Amino acid sequence: TTSSIARILKARGVPLTVVKIDPYLNVDAGTMNPYQHGEVFVLDDGTEVDLDLGNYERFLGESLPGNHNLTTGKVYRTVIEKERRGDYLGNTVQIIPHVTGEVKHMLREAAQHAQAELTLVEVGGTVGDIESMPFLEALRELQQEVGGRDHMAFVHTTLVPVVGAVGEAKTKPTQHSVRELRSLGIQPDMIVARGPAALTPDLRAKISLFCDVPPEAVIAVPDLPTVYQVPLHLESQGVGDYLVKRLGIEGA
Amino acid sequence: TTSSIARILKARGVPLTVVKIDPYLNVDAGTMNPYQHGEVFVLDDGTEVDLDLGNYERFLGESLPGNHNLTTGKVYRTVIEKERRGDYLGNTVQIIPHVTGEVKHMLREAAQHAQAELTLVEVGGTVGDIESMPFLEALRELQQEVGGRDHMAFVHTTLVPVVGAVGEAKTKPTQHSVRELRSLGIQPDMIVARGPAALTPDLRAKISLFCDVPPEAVIAVPDLPTVYQVPLHLESQGVGDYLVKRLGIEGA
Amino acid sequence: TTSSIARILKARGVPLTVVKIDPYLNVDAGTMNPYQHGEVFVLDDGTEVDLDLGNYERFLGESLPGNHNLTTGKVYRTVIEKERRGDYLGNTVQIIPHVTGEVKHMLREAAQHAQAELTLVEVGGTVGDIESMPFLEALRELQQEVGGRDHMAFVHTTLVPVVGAVGEAKTKPTQHSVRELRSLGIQPDMIVARGPAALTPDLRAKISLFCDVPPEAVIAVPDLPTVYQVPLHLESQGVGDYLVKRLGIEGA
Amino acid sequence: TTSSIARILKARGVPLTVVKIDPYLNVDAGTMNPYQHGEVFVLDDGTEVDLDLGNYERFLGESLPGNHNLTTGKVYRTVIEKERRGDYLGNTVQIIPHVTGEVKHMLREAAQHAQAELTLVEVGGTVGDIESMPFLEALRELQQEVGGRDHMAFVHTTLVPVVGAVGEAKTKPTQHSVRELRSLGIQPDMIVARGPAALTPDLRAKISLFCDVPPEAVIAVPDLPTVYQVPLHLESQGVGDYLVKRLGIEGA
Repeated sequence: TTSSIARILKARGVPLTVVKIDPYLNVDAGTMNPYQHGEVFVLDDGTEVDLDLGNYERFLGESLPGNHNLTTGKVYRTVIEKERRGDYLGNTVQIIPHVTGEVKHMLREAAQHAQAELTLVEVGGTVGDIESMPFLEALRELQQEVGGRDHMAFVHTTLVPVVGAVGEAKTKPTQHSVRELRSLGIQPDMIVARGPAALTPDLRAKISLFCDVPPEAVIAVPDLPTVYQVPLHLESQGVGDYLVKRLGIEGA
Repeated sequence: TTSSIARILKARGVPLTVVKIDPYLNVDAGTMNPYQHGEVFVLDDGTEVDLDLGNYERFLGESLPGNHNLTTGKVYRTVIEKERRGDYLGNTVQIIPHVTGEVKHMLREAAQHAQAELTLVEVGGTVGDIESMPFLEALRELQQEVGGRDHMAFVHTTLVPVVGAVGEAKTKPTQHSVRELRSLGIQPDMIVARGPAALTPDLRAKISLFCDVPPEAVIAVPDLPTVYQVPLHLESQGVGDYLVKRLGIEGA
Repeated sequence: TTSSIARILKARGVPLTVVKIDPYLNVDAGTMNPYQHGEVFVLDDGTEVDLDLGNYERFLGESLPGNHNLTTGKVYRTVIEKERRGDYLGNTVQIIPHVTGEVKHMLREAAQHAQAELTLVEVGGTVGDIESMPFLEALRELQQEVGGRDHMAFVHTTLVPVVGAVGEAKTKPTQHSVRELRSLGIQPDMIVARGPAALTPDLRAKISLFCDVPPEAVIAVPDLPTVYQVPLHLESQGVGDYLVKRLGIEGA
Repeated sequence: TTSSIARILKARGVPLTVVKIDPYLNVDAGTMNPYQHGEVFVLDDGTEVDLDLGNYERFLGESLPGNHNLTTGKVYRTVIEKERRGDYLGNTVQIIPHVTGEVKHMLREAAQHAQAELTLVEVGGTVGDIESMPFLEALRELQQEVGGRDHMAFVHTTLVPVVGAVGEAKTKPTQHSVRELRSLGIQPDMIVARGPAALTPDLRAKISLFCDVPPEAVIAVPDLPTVYQVPLHLESQGVGDYLVKRLGIEGA
């Protein structure tokens, strides 16, 4: 989804880049078993990263450097090295503000180096996992620092499973994950509903109501034959227009 | 409180030891500013640790080695080094089971080396902090592995503040932290209520009811003139007898 | 599932009965639209109730009276009438202890009247709904009052959806609902996994580990051609033996 | 606090009224024991209500009718009567949307009848209590319906206890209750910190940071000799200006 949104917005001339956050503790994907995790993708600078980075490059038609992939291992290793060097001047080193500070620093660096006006950050994993909490907190702080919801938007991808013989679409998992996100201080601005369910007006209204998201920001992404159809599918539901307006991106 | 419980049980002849978990990211207390965090305590083997370890040594009349102090920094550094060496055989390294596994391994090592039948583990910080979650999950798993609640008990220390002109004792913070503990899968076996409040029978019954803890396992620890009075205070409320019976410790 | 468990245990000669809790605010099902909620079932005493009661009667081969169906409407109406009559002697009337007290009273009455040694209580709705909270709290208190987990067990029915082209079974919804249950002070003793997923040993071990439930208490109930096959299916997975042993039911 | 805020805003010429929500199940305060709950206040129309209503009348210099006091008992009794009459046309009656709908209806009625441009709604009890959840959900929906945060603001009153010999102010209870509020979909716009703590710039910044509230919207209300000093105290911290600006109230 991230690469498709990136594609849509880039097509409108927005200078953007993409960063992937993988909350696992591996410092990079180099040590990971391809049978378990899928093939590793090797960037032009030699960094071994998650396959998603390959998707980004293909969708953006650009080469990305290794610092566009953050992992828990990479962040904690940096923080622990700094602590050992005495960089924190004797402070008790904590997730807030030290780990979240490092995450924000890495994101700002990647964005500045890419001279991007807009940076899409994809956080892997599931809301509620301990691994992703420091990253989500960092993003919450970042939103505050850049001036609030007019300057940074959260897109929440969630599963809407269909169960039983009659194919009833279940929104409880979405309600759960949105409640969890909110308790972390994050209010999603757009909901992307994955799954086979057609998003009926009723279902869309229900999700809109309990997520505090306008109906036009509830988007369905069913399983499509190829990922290359996803950008067109998103565009047809007005994702590009909504985000451009929401973030006040000029000339797009 | 931990050192006092240790003192009480040691006086009954239970071969025990104590481990302190500090959820901060500093690898050890050596880099920490004494003005902010209090003086560092230096163990006989040269490790610089939290002052609490000094309390343990004084209360137990024993010298403790450096591996009786775990920190987030120490655990994550070990896990990341193992990952870089390929010890995880290409697996995606996660908090569960890899970080929790390392915590359990470190705790077992400290206990075995000390030839202890009982190990008291104090977890610093506050329930609900992201930092302490991997440690609490490790302890939950450990309880399952050692055979359940008859072999491992959780003592939850909580603040019961007194507010207003009439000095009303507030149990809401206790309810909150117990709910949080439970959502992590931990059911406390004893509640230690810190604060100036006298624990009236009413208050004790209320805490007992919503915490699922018998009334005799709700213990008050007010602010005493010196910490050396705490063991006597706990003993007078039956803490020793309760824990010995609860854990089925023979000959104690 | 409840009626099937009832069938299995009744076949072993356990004198039991069944109560259904519907957390909706309708006092009974008489006013409910059959197109929306399904047909109403009329008990021998004329009470109009949820269709599930019909299932119980068929599976047990017995007639049930109207007080075997509790709804939020019925409970609150009773409590509000008592309050207006002054039965609470001027107390501030609260969910805890007044509503939960009424729920426990109604459950005890139904059980005593039916001369049952074991009462199965099915709570409709979803964990986390506000409607079901007073009922779950009442059951938590009841477990404490009857002497703990050896005398009352919780069976948690949860959806394990299968998603995507490769048919991956998702346990996140189960983790979420168990975490929610625990935060309410309820530790499930058995997990019934609904859904098309075959419960592989791996999946069973995973659910067992994070739910603190032994592997043999993780039960799969796929969609079967008729509900009358469910009891046999449960029996083949050892549900009857497990519950009889767990609750120490003699001669069964 | 509510009556003081009302006083401040009324002094600026804003046509306003006040509604008190008491989440207890008593239909009105008439049956309540004065020894336990304090004296009952009798409105001009004869309704027996909570003492707070008396405060409102004194601070506003106005007489309020009985429908300016909502209780769980009053709301549920109305909903259950409507259900019995068939007003819900056979629907399954649920907290959402039926109870929350009734709450919103009652609030709108009270506001319209009082010809108020601004209505202050005080919700008694504690965030996280089951009793207050339907009311908080109703207010969340109401905010959405009136056009979002520019038209309706949430003021969260929270306890900042001071503990120990050195008098350390604890913000954990505030963090907990704000997290709980957020998980219910409510983002506070102003934090009122009750308690003896002086709000140091550090403390204010900390609360501001994790509550996503600007520092000038973090207000301290210590225990004052008389409640009549509270309005002046709030005014001196800029509460009036902040709220007038926040809600875009003209000519005030």
